[in-house]
Amino acid sequence: MNIAMIEAAATRMAGHVRRTPLLNAPLLDRMVGRRVLVKAECLQVTGSFKARGGWSAVSALDPAARARGVIAYSSGNHAQGVAYAAAAHAAPCVILMPSDAPAVKIANTRSYGAEVVLYDRATEDRDAIGARLSQDRGLTLIKPYDDPQVIAGQGTVGLELAQQAADAGVDKAPVFVCCGGGGLASGIALALQAHAPGLHVRTAEPEGFDDMARSLASGRRERNAALSGSICDAILTPSPGELTLPLLSGLAGPGAVVRDDQALRAVALAFTHLRVVLEPGGAAALAAALFGEGLPDTVIAVATGGNVDPATFATALERFA
Amino acid sequence: MNIAMIEAAATRMAGHVRRTPLLNAPLLDRMVGRRVLVKAECLQVTGSFKARGGWSAVSALDPAARARGVIAYSSGNHAQGVAYAAAAHAAPCVILMPSDAPAVKIANTRSYGAEVVLYDRATEDRDAIGARLSQDRGLTLIKPYDDPQVIAGQGTVGLELAQQAADAGVDKAPVFVCCGGGGLASGIALALQAHAPGLHVRTAEPEGFDDMARSLASGRRERNAALSGSICDAILTPSPGELTLPLLSGLAGPGAVVRDDQALRAVALAFTHLRVVLEPGGAAALAAALFGEGLPDTVIAVATGGNVDPATFATALERFA
Repeated sequence: MNIAMIEAAATRMAGHVRRTPLLNAPLLDRMVGRRVLVKAECLQVTGSFKARGGWSAVSALDPAARARGVIAYSSGNHAQGVAYAAAAHAAPCVILMPSDAPAVKIANTRSYGAEVVLYDRATEDRDAIGARLSQDRGLTLIKPYDDPQVIAGQGTVGLELAQQAADAGVDKAPVFVCCGGGGLASGIALALQAHAPGLHVRTAEPEGFDDMARSLASGRRERNAALSGSICDAILTPSPGELTLPLLSGLAGPGAVVRDDQALRAVALAFTHLRVVLEPGGAAALAAALFGEGLPDTVIAVATGGNVDPATFATALERFA
Repeated sequence: MNIAMIEAAATRMAGHVRRTPLLNAPLLDRMVGRRVLVKAECLQVTGSFKARGGWSAVSALDPAARARGVIAYSSGNHAQGVAYAAAAHAAPCVILMPSDAPAVKIANTRSYGAEVVLYDRATEDRDAIGARLSQDRGLTLIKPYDDPQVIAGQGTVGLELAQQAADAGVDKAPVFVCCGGGGLASGIALALQAHAPGLHVRTAEPEGFDDMARSLASGRRERNAALSGSICDAILTPSPGELTLPLLSGLAGPGAVVRDDQALRAVALAFTHLRVVLEPGGAAALAAALFGEGLPDTVIAVATGGNVDPATFATALERFA
């Protein structure tokens, strides 16, 4: 895993994955008393940064493997990112989803051209089904974060950020990144180390699911006690990845932790001041940047995704807008 | 009024006004059966394209006039655009607003540093108050559309669009533009005539307020029967501007007309597929691009603003998302 892989991923995705803007809002800055720059990955082509990792991984396969196809386990942003990339490469794509996933997510993933295979969470073993499908059809598994090419793809956010921060006159700032398994945070940290060493990654996680914050502190892969129970569903993972924690150790931290109500309030403030749509898990970093204490005059937040159901969004507006 | 003025405005605003992205969404394209490219001016620094015209006009003043200050009549996007530009130029700024304007708009305009002067719509004469203030303090009036430098500023949207459409491989398409007085539409039309003659402006207006569509057809400045009564409040004007109609005649049309429910549905689809926040008046062009009949394979829409109250947005989500 190195910076050259990230730069190569950027070259492969040019013209297919969007260079997202770095937004800011004078009134929001004034409200919180610091300059808050927001990398709006919710504007990415599939609504989250996952299109980058998906593109990077699919485009890095050798042509024979690509022709056989890819498989991913996800009901969320990773599914859409991989499906988008696979369709554009004319690669068959199977997405394995729990049968109780929201109908709209199943429909969206199918709309990108993927074959959705449903399994029963209670009675079936996802990994066994996936392994059988992979073997039968020769599909390559694209993992959500523990894959060097996926990390390289997510790292392209960091390449853009280094340039955009420099354009904004910022060479020193914490960069809050919403963190599940750590693929995005580690990719960005590698890119910034090479191109903007004054920008320092800090992971942002929901309260009760701060496995990365604790792992960065202890140096070991710590686990969360629960797998669900936060509104930030997009970034709930059992523990940091095997690849990602070693990459992040020494480069990133300390990890920030935000409450669900802070994430929802960040969703509402992004609506009012930045006019972008964020999902709660995609707003965790913005919440850390807005509501954290002892922060410097300029902070950066990566707003990772905007695939949110209307009812959740309406709740955020009702409570906080 | 010529292309050189637009290019000069672009030079003056570099680094202060945002180059907004041209967004698209594969699933939205699939839903409507054509490629829809959306110039997201809701992501502009004050939440609408009006920051461009404001910046262009304030920056074009001679230093002595700028030091005396500017005045604008507006309770909406033009107020914020002018206030933002004036503050950045350290120019005093008075915004004249009806006393029944929403408190949040008054507060926002003050937050940009403007002095808000309130008047009673029922008993006071706005123009008389404005004239007296202008005379007493030597303020320059910045009109919302009938001002060459304002039109030049709005035209910078067209310069960016010409480049972005070319980057997307598009050299021929209708460009729907939300239209009130016609400042934005005329500026864009001039820029595209010079830099992308295959892109053709079509104004988009709410049903019952299609003064520009009728004026383009008749060649005369037609008036609307009413001044209120559409949810698209940002683009309700009594008639086309004196400067804008002559500029648009021959360069733009035919004008499109959308219903309020179509504008709200476009707001909801932009939420789901583009993850941007639009106000109904800022979504009129997108509605025309999505729901119009007999359109070509690729269409462009300028989404002009995103300053929407949460209740209106929630209604759009509830009804259409």
